[in-house]
Amino acid sequence: MADQLKKALQYAHDHQKAFLDTYQEILSIPSISTDPTKKDEIRRAAEWMASQLRGLGMKNVQIFPTAGHPIVYGEWLEVKEAPTLLIYGHYDVQPVDPLNLWKSDPFKPSIVGENIFARGASDMKGQAVITMKAVEALVKNGGLPVNLKWLFEGEEEIGSPHLGDFIGGHKDLLKSDYAVNPDSGLIGPEYPTITYALRGLAYFELRVYGPAQDLHSGMFGGAVGNPANALAELIAGMHDEQGCVALPGFYDKVRELSQEEREELKRIPFDEKSYMEKIGVRGLHGEAGYTTLEREGVRPTLDVNGLLAGFTGEGSKTIIPAWAMAKISCRLVPDQDPKEVHQQMLRYLEDHAPKSIRWELDELAGGPASISNKDSQVVQAMSNALEAVWGRRPYFKREGGSIPVVAQMQHLLGLESVIAGFGLPDDNVHSPNEKQHLPTWYRGIDTYIHFFINLKK
Amino acid sequence: MADQLKKALQYAHDHQKAFLDTYQEILSIPSISTDPTKKDEIRRAAEWMASQLRGLGMKNVQIFPTAGHPIVYGEWLEVKEAPTLLIYGHYDVQPVDPLNLWKSDPFKPSIVGENIFARGASDMKGQAVITMKAVEALVKNGGLPVNLKWLFEGEEEIGSPHLGDFIGGHKDLLKSDYAVNPDSGLIGPEYPTITYALRGLAYFELRVYGPAQDLHSGMFGGAVGNPANALAELIAGMHDEQGCVALPGFYDKVRELSQEEREELKRIPFDEKSYMEKIGVRGLHGEAGYTTLEREGVRPTLDVNGLLAGFTGEGSKTIIPAWAMAKISCRLVPDQDPKEVHQQMLRYLEDHAPKSIRWELDELAGGPASISNKDSQVVQAMSNALEAVWGRRPYFKREGGSIPVVAQMQHLLGLESVIAGFGLPDDNVHSPNEKQHLPTWYRGIDTYIHFFINLKK
Repeated sequence: MADQLKKALQYAHDHQKAFLDTYQEILSIPSISTDPTKKDEIRRAAEWMASQLRGLGMKNVQIFPTAGHPIVYGEWLEVKEAPTLLIYGHYDVQPVDPLNLWKSDPFKPSIVGENIFARGASDMKGQAVITMKAVEALVKNGGLPVNLKWLFEGEEEIGSPHLGDFIGGHKDLLKSDYAVNPDSGLIGPEYPTITYALRGLAYFELRVYGPAQDLHSGMFGGAVGNPANALAELIAGMHDEQGCVALPGFYDKVRELSQEEREELKRIPFDEKSYMEKIGVRGLHGEAGYTTLEREGVRPTLDVNGLLAGFTGEGSKTIIPAWAMAKISCRLVPDQDPKEVHQQMLRYLEDHAPKSIRWELDELAGGPASISNKDSQVVQAMSNALEAVWGRRPYFKREGGSIPVVAQMQHLLGLESVIAGFGLPDDNVHSPNEKQHLPTWYRGIDTYIHFFINLKK
Repeated sequence: MADQLKKALQYAHDHQKAFLDTYQEILSIPSISTDPTKKDEIRRAAEWMASQLRGLGMKNVQIFPTAGHPIVYGEWLEVKEAPTLLIYGHYDVQPVDPLNLWKSDPFKPSIVGENIFARGASDMKGQAVITMKAVEALVKNGGLPVNLKWLFEGEEEIGSPHLGDFIGGHKDLLKSDYAVNPDSGLIGPEYPTITYALRGLAYFELRVYGPAQDLHSGMFGGAVGNPANALAELIAGMHDEQGCVALPGFYDKVRELSQEEREELKRIPFDEKSYMEKIGVRGLHGEAGYTTLEREGVRPTLDVNGLLAGFTGEGSKTIIPAWAMAKISCRLVPDQDPKEVHQQMLRYLEDHAPKSIRWELDELAGGPASISNKDSQVVQAMSNALEAVWGRRPYFKREGGSIPVVAQMQHLLGLESVIAGFGLPDDNVHSPNEKQHLPTWYRGIDTYIHFFINLKK
């Protein structure tokens, strides 16, 4: 085993150039799942993933259609007396607007210094390719030490609307011992990290309607309810003065932070000043009584993601807009239920919307939070792999983002997940100029080689 | 004089078809002043106005350049012992978006039943053509009974940024006895109306900045001030629970409504139910303690005219936006000062904006309110003209909209204005499907024929 490890690591180091070429291929496909005009590109990305799995010798590689974008599956079940891992990934990416803020084409990967810039470089095409290249290094050097099932979806960035049904409908196909999710990152390039909890999501579009059409704000102003003002008032009322979310019952099921967990989170290196510099703000803002790391990992939120009403062009137009729209999303923590948060939002609107306007609320995406057992075999195998590559014990963190599939695998397949990817906090995921740090990316491949071998033991 | 009146009215009735053709010519020019790509069309509209004045035999017709769009001037000063009227108009129009709600091309006039549909049909190309066609009827039938100066600007819909300077710099050229402003309308087709007061305007763009770029709302949500939430909270705080504007000192100079004026406004026929049906709302909303007509004519306001932040496309994008923008405008009443309202807005923002965000406020347009003396010769001449055409005494109303030039003529030239135009409340000005009621338009021409002759007496 020690011999295979050595050879596989050597292979990975010798093939860095070829690995990078493969990575750039998938980064060049604009697989934006939220954009209906990119349907063919999404398909192309799915086919690329399937062809990679076939190239690795995986069996039963299939592209399953869904009501949305397809799901790619493949498997290797030839290893006796070894556990079976279900590796999850997504081949879709976020939209790229505002495009004018990108320094290079988001779908023409550009290497500057130690980083590769492209949409999806970090979230998460880069992480998916890490797992495939670690497998390649093992396949070419003695064969896989574990059994694998792969599941790549194309709708993660739109809230995985069809993944739950797919998993529920293919429980036998997906039956495994552990789930592995590399859609994640490190605290910093020198801090190996395992994410053991993720926040959930409840994403809404709220539309407020006033007059049948835009009205002259001089002729009607003062006498007619303005939907843009009403929307602003509704949003303002969704937080109280302590920065807490004011939807009725929002905190009823929130698991309070234990003193032990609080101490552990304090171990994570965190410098508020450089954090503020990195994101370009002069001050931080959040729920009273919690630290920044607690606010972004352990506490639930409510954020406006988009606003639109009336005249937004250059200059002035004196209208009362006919309607106003907000995209509003809540990050959820254990044990909040997105369906209940939807009901809380509805109740808030019923209680607070003025009678002179009409409103509609759509739930666009949602999924519960999740939390893992840090003592499981799979988490320990990853912890040891990270320690072998970085030379230090990893940090265990709670992640503010949402990976609905982790909760789904727990609820539908009964699988414990290990979450370990190799993004960095300054990767600009979901933002212009997304990037992946390449030295960390190569270390990620080494880590997954160790990890697969650790599970054989 | 009675003979000239009869002949001029007969001429106007005989030439309805030709008058309508002229009207359609100017409606076909897309002179949108707020749109930088329409500069040439604005110029074309100015040249059209000048050519019409020349066609009426006006002297000294000139197109004055300004730092923005040009001003058209012309005059007729040949009538001894008659007053000189300064007729104001604007040849620019509002933008047409949302274009998909128009039933016909906004710049291809379309006659359906008794109405003509086009951007500017009512506001105010239609009203400008009324004054010119009344003059034509008199010129062709014995000559003008009064002296005239014409002033057509191309920037009314963007707040007349260069008109004040032009008037101030051409006081001798514009010296007159009275100003006439037809940029107005009737309460209803059977209700002759004179507007004796107008609201002013203070129009702002407020931009709120958070992180240097859009952030992932999962990774950072809860810990970073969200500029879209902050903007909503700032807007919400601009009104109190009574529907009053909460900027500090906003009401300090507001002239309270006298009991007499209140009674007079009550004479104006107003049916709340049909008003709500017309604009398509289920309820009305405004400052407590005032009627709808008082709210829209006598009381100051604060309305959001536009909102923009973050992701506004189809579907969901989980970001904390880097910035959020609102267009916000106040309608002002005597004796509020737009400069002071700007200061009040700045003070409000200084007092209420959270420290974690940065903000910028631009003043895009502004002008004071105005109010006229109902007993002046010019108002009486118009009142009698309206009574002659409609067979009933006109209603005197306060208009919620703003015509900054009326205040400027009062302040810079010392001129009392009469405001009488022939739009209707359901003309959809500033909205899709703007129209002008043609029978009312023809009566407008008759009214101005009477009016000019009345001033000779």
